[in-house]
Amino acid sequence: MLSNRKEIHVEWGDCDPAGIVYFPRFFEYFDACTNALFEKAGFRKAEMLKHYGLVGIPLVEASAQFYAPASFGETVVVESRIVAWGRSSFRVEHKLYIGKALTAEGREKRVWTVRDAKLQKGMRGQVIPEEVKAKFG
Amino acid sequence: MLSNRKEIHVEWGDCDPAGIVYFPRFFEYFDACTNALFEKAGFRKAEMLKHYGLVGIPLVEASAQFYAPASFGETVVVESRIVAWGRSSFRVEHKLYIGKALTAEGREKRVWTVRDAKLQKGMRGQVIPEEVKAKFG
Amino acid sequence: MLSNRKEIHVEWGDCDPAGIVYFPRFFEYFDACTNALFEKAGFRKAEMLKHYGLVGIPLVEASAQFYAPASFGETVVVESRIVAWGRSSFRVEHKLYIGKALTAEGREKRVWTVRDAKLQKGMRGQVIPEEVKAKFG
Amino acid sequence: MLSNRKEIHVEWGDCDPAGIVYFPRFFEYFDACTNALFEKAGFRKAEMLKHYGLVGIPLVEASAQFYAPASFGETVVVESRIVAWGRSSFRVEHKLYIGKALTAEGREKRVWTVRDAKLQKGMRGQVIPEEVKAKFG
Repeated sequence: MLSNRKEIHVEWGDCDPAGIVYFPRFFEYFDACTNALFEKAGFRKAEMLKHYGLVGIPLVEASAQFYAPASFGETVVVESRIVAWGRSSFRVEHKLYIGKALTAEGREKRVWTVRDAKLQKGMRGQVIPEEVKAKFG
Repeated sequence: MLSNRKEIHVEWGDCDPAGIVYFPRFFEYFDACTNALFEKAGFRKAEMLKHYGLVGIPLVEASAQFYAPASFGETVVVESRIVAWGRSSFRVEHKLYIGKALTAEGREKRVWTVRDAKLQKGMRGQVIPEEVKAKFG
Repeated sequence: MLSNRKEIHVEWGDCDPAGIVYFPRFFEYFDACTNALFEKAGFRKAEMLKHYGLVGIPLVEASAQFYAPASFGETVVVESRIVAWGRSSFRVEHKLYIGKALTAEGREKRVWTVRDAKLQKGMRGQVIPEEVKAKFG
Repeated sequence: MLSNRKEIHVEWGDCDPAGIVYFPRFFEYFDACTNALFEKAGFRKAEMLKHYGLVGIPLVEASAQFYAPASFGETVVVESRIVAWGRSSFRVEHKLYIGKALTAEGREKRVWTVRDAKLQKGMRGQVIPEEVKAKFG
């Protein structure tokens, strides 16, 4: 399975009054890492959305475990890969390291979502093209 | 068990290019709702941190399920309560509604965390005072 | 001139390791207040975008002065009004108070921006309809 | 004068429903660039705060002009330098480029701020050490 490693520099603005990363920011990191994984597979997000008529690849589930705090000035490395493909959804796993220490883990379930003006919310899930899955082989 | 209902107005700046709430923002909503629940129980965060020597009540686990998108201009209502107390940790559940529709759910596991200058990270978990738990009874 | 007052509760997640509002969040507050001002004038953002074919009312200038810090748990009140109309742009001013103390001021210059698929960026400024300006009378 | 160039990858989560960078995020970029400039001068923020007893270098003024939108997937480069030193404050300028196009400019006025438990807000400005200014040549 294709995986990607992304370095992220923890910024002052990512941290809360406890001086550590405000936990929703970890989910922002993971989101950026999923997009980087797709880019590594050949799918730059802006082009991918246009090409497949996607509104995005929104989440239906997200979870994370935080084993230790991270703070501004630290550099974290996130390893990401797709761990399961469904018909119209897929699961991504992220492992976040500071040095060699596994500091946090994240999991996402996302849906391949196209625009559909007939629906109230203007979007619905659709079958993921095999050619997309194949690139993560 | 004490519960709290908090109205949140979804802002333009909470939404992503798909036009819907960027999912890490839901975790920000839930975090604000936990603080509002504590405030309802009599613990305003700033005073609580000083009184108990806390650095915060950081998360060790967070998860959410998103059943439908929410978009700017909508008002959501979040119902929050503590569902389990451990020695130094506790679990919070959030149910987010748009009108009568359950739109998202969130769960947090948080640790009662005090400053400890002797440790590298400057913080460690501590037993939650019974007087605190009692207020959520 | 129409003005609007909006209360905002400063959240833990709005604050940085100094324990005070991270300054870009003040710009988020101001943005929400501009949208609230339009809503008071009868223009809910989602409907306004559809009705006028707008991509948004993006900023070409933003500035703020911060006279004192604000911190989590405090409630601020922001008074907002449009102070100048151009052909396709307008200026908004925000005064942020904690109690009676003027704590910050913000200014925005925004452009009435429509979609235009022919342009590389897909958007361009357009003359603001007189009926819109009239509502802020 | 010492200057710093920092590359920033515009993330999906930095963008709003118009598909372009939500303007407060530009201020987050600029803030990260000021910290990177200090780091280049030899002052890593966490160490600098401890060494000088700083609570931070909070802003009293911030402004920006946006000449063109930026969108997710684009890489911007920000050139930053300190353009004026006062006794206890200093001014920073940021120029943000996409390719060769100047896309946005930002200006900050910041204060060298130490903890002072005697004050209500717990902080006050202090004279900037000459040794600090000297490192920015």
